[in-house]
Amino acid sequence: MIQHFFTVGPSQLHPNYTHWMQQAFDAQLGSISHRSATFNNIYKQADEHLRALMNIPASHSIFFLPSATEVWERIIANTVSRHSAHLVSGAFGKKFYEFSQALGKQAQLIGVPHGQGFEQINTLSLHPDTELICTTHNETASGVQLPLAHYATLKQQYPNALLCTDIVSSAPYANIDFTIVDSAFFSVQKAFGLPAGLGVWIANEACINKSTQAANKGAHHTLEQFAKNYKNWETPSTPNVVNIFLLSKVAEAYNKIGINAIRQQVEDRAKILYQLGEQKQSLANLVTTPAIQSQTVVVYNTTQAGDIISNFKQSQIILGSGYGSFKHNNIRIANFPSITEQSFDILINKLNQLA
Amino acid sequence: MIQHFFTVGPSQLHPNYTHWMQQAFDAQLGSISHRSATFNNIYKQADEHLRALMNIPASHSIFFLPSATEVWERIIANTVSRHSAHLVSGAFGKKFYEFSQALGKQAQLIGVPHGQGFEQINTLSLHPDTELICTTHNETASGVQLPLAHYATLKQQYPNALLCTDIVSSAPYANIDFTIVDSAFFSVQKAFGLPAGLGVWIANEACINKSTQAANKGAHHTLEQFAKNYKNWETPSTPNVVNIFLLSKVAEAYNKIGINAIRQQVEDRAKILYQLGEQKQSLANLVTTPAIQSQTVVVYNTTQAGDIISNFKQSQIILGSGYGSFKHNNIRIANFPSITEQSFDILINKLNQLA
Repeated sequence: MIQHFFTVGPSQLHPNYTHWMQQAFDAQLGSISHRSATFNNIYKQADEHLRALMNIPASHSIFFLPSATEVWERIIANTVSRHSAHLVSGAFGKKFYEFSQALGKQAQLIGVPHGQGFEQINTLSLHPDTELICTTHNETASGVQLPLAHYATLKQQYPNALLCTDIVSSAPYANIDFTIVDSAFFSVQKAFGLPAGLGVWIANEACINKSTQAANKGAHHTLEQFAKNYKNWETPSTPNVVNIFLLSKVAEAYNKIGINAIRQQVEDRAKILYQLGEQKQSLANLVTTPAIQSQTVVVYNTTQAGDIISNFKQSQIILGSGYGSFKHNNIRIANFPSITEQSFDILINKLNQLA
Repeated sequence: MIQHFFTVGPSQLHPNYTHWMQQAFDAQLGSISHRSATFNNIYKQADEHLRALMNIPASHSIFFLPSATEVWERIIANTVSRHSAHLVSGAFGKKFYEFSQALGKQAQLIGVPHGQGFEQINTLSLHPDTELICTTHNETASGVQLPLAHYATLKQQYPNALLCTDIVSSAPYANIDFTIVDSAFFSVQKAFGLPAGLGVWIANEACINKSTQAANKGAHHTLEQFAKNYKNWETPSTPNVVNIFLLSKVAEAYNKIGINAIRQQVEDRAKILYQLGEQKQSLANLVTTPAIQSQTVVVYNTTQAGDIISNFKQSQIILGSGYGSFKHNNIRIANFPSITEQSFDILINKLNQLA
């Protein structure tokens, strides 16, 4: 029986996934060398499709590594000698902060409670020597979104700091302005509808230069190594070739639809999900301020989380449970563009049946 | 046209790969949560099959991470505060050594020239405070193997050091004695015949305890985190679920054949390949001492590397070129158990046609 996955990642696979896997089988992509022209071409195509989709300028390189979680560690090790600052609106932003602490940095946490976000941003007092400002565009644990205008404010107030943003569960919906944001990163098992095992790290020259000068940047997957290999469409170590090929295919397919149409569809669906949170007695929107409501991860408060999740599962609809200590009080629903119209309709129909 | 890959990794995929991928599609494994009972069961089964195949005792845990290259960094960061020692017989062992240097450790290199190995081992003078002895069971760059008896000698001479071995291109052929070896690691794109994107790290309590006490062990994928998550059949971050499932299937299939039969087949084929190196005018075995001849990666010296590789490619036979500066003088041939009898016969037939 086919299940409809609305978990926030891994999630429903792109409807063409098995078709593209068949292409990967036929081309024997699981066997090719990552130093071959065939691989170079796959990397180049993925790069081109992602640039077009996410409006990534030539100032930024696109690197492939196993996961966005790994980027948390690498970006701190490579660009922070002492001071990082973290705008934390949930459990994943907090983990990013904890990574900086674990690496022995002076990490500054500016936090808001679960379900709240940064509505205003011009009154933050970051340490004057902050080298890297760490933000989460879309907090997967709480469904809180950072308003895009905040990036410009942060860059204006702290022009000497690098500005990075975690877009794990909002890429490619997130319309990031890469003339302001120095680095962003995501994993493919969220809104690109692919199996886990690949992360994408977008970083500009300023990040790479900082890495070149950095001490204690680690041995594996340094920005310097990525930048050097990127010149030849290669990666420092053997990458997940098949997933890079699949990512290229998803980005190409999204480009055919057009990023504006994709964003519109995400917003239209989010609107329906948040309306249900207002209308249904058994559900309430965790995030109530529209400006910070995630468009790709909708979180409900509910006293019946376990029952609703079990009940939906019997109808082959898999919802995400709340994160960590919110397991019994939240339901999380992925609203990713890889989810088909048919699956979304099945979800809405079932949600409508709730009290 | 189907190509026969004898590259040393990525290499030819296991003949059942597409069949198992179909099972993964049907079970929607690309979508399932890595915190679900379904995943826990996949991890548990992979663990059981690998334990049976490689004779891994209960003293050792089995962790999954993206690659063996990453293990080089993690094991040093987690178990070495100051001194590591490296027995280096080629480019990959040297990289392991360089990782330790990059992490700021006092790394001791004991090296032999390309194509030579450690025939004797009891005269080495490792630093008395060595915390981790780093060995390469099978040097993928040169086709040199470390005799298994050396592990016991090393452990006897340096009982206070942890002993680890890189079995990237020899697992599961390598008959490692885990009562002596504290840690070993490999990637699945070699002798398990799977696409790249998954590494396996086998480590005992002594390694984990060292990690618990270690400072500066990094933020991501520490041994401590792996050990904690392992208790629940989980990983610290979202793993490559599909590849773990596939690895479990390969290990199960290898167990059905039996590890002794697999080792015998590998040795029988290696014998044929080394005999050709003796008989053919255009080829010569790079490694001539039987005790250190790799059974899974056979390397030929030749003045015609480029021509032979091109010529074989026209017959859909993909050979590995020499590593790094040996690109034009060496040919490397994978002799992995995932390579079918049919492919091996095609290779031998073609090699026999050489002068």
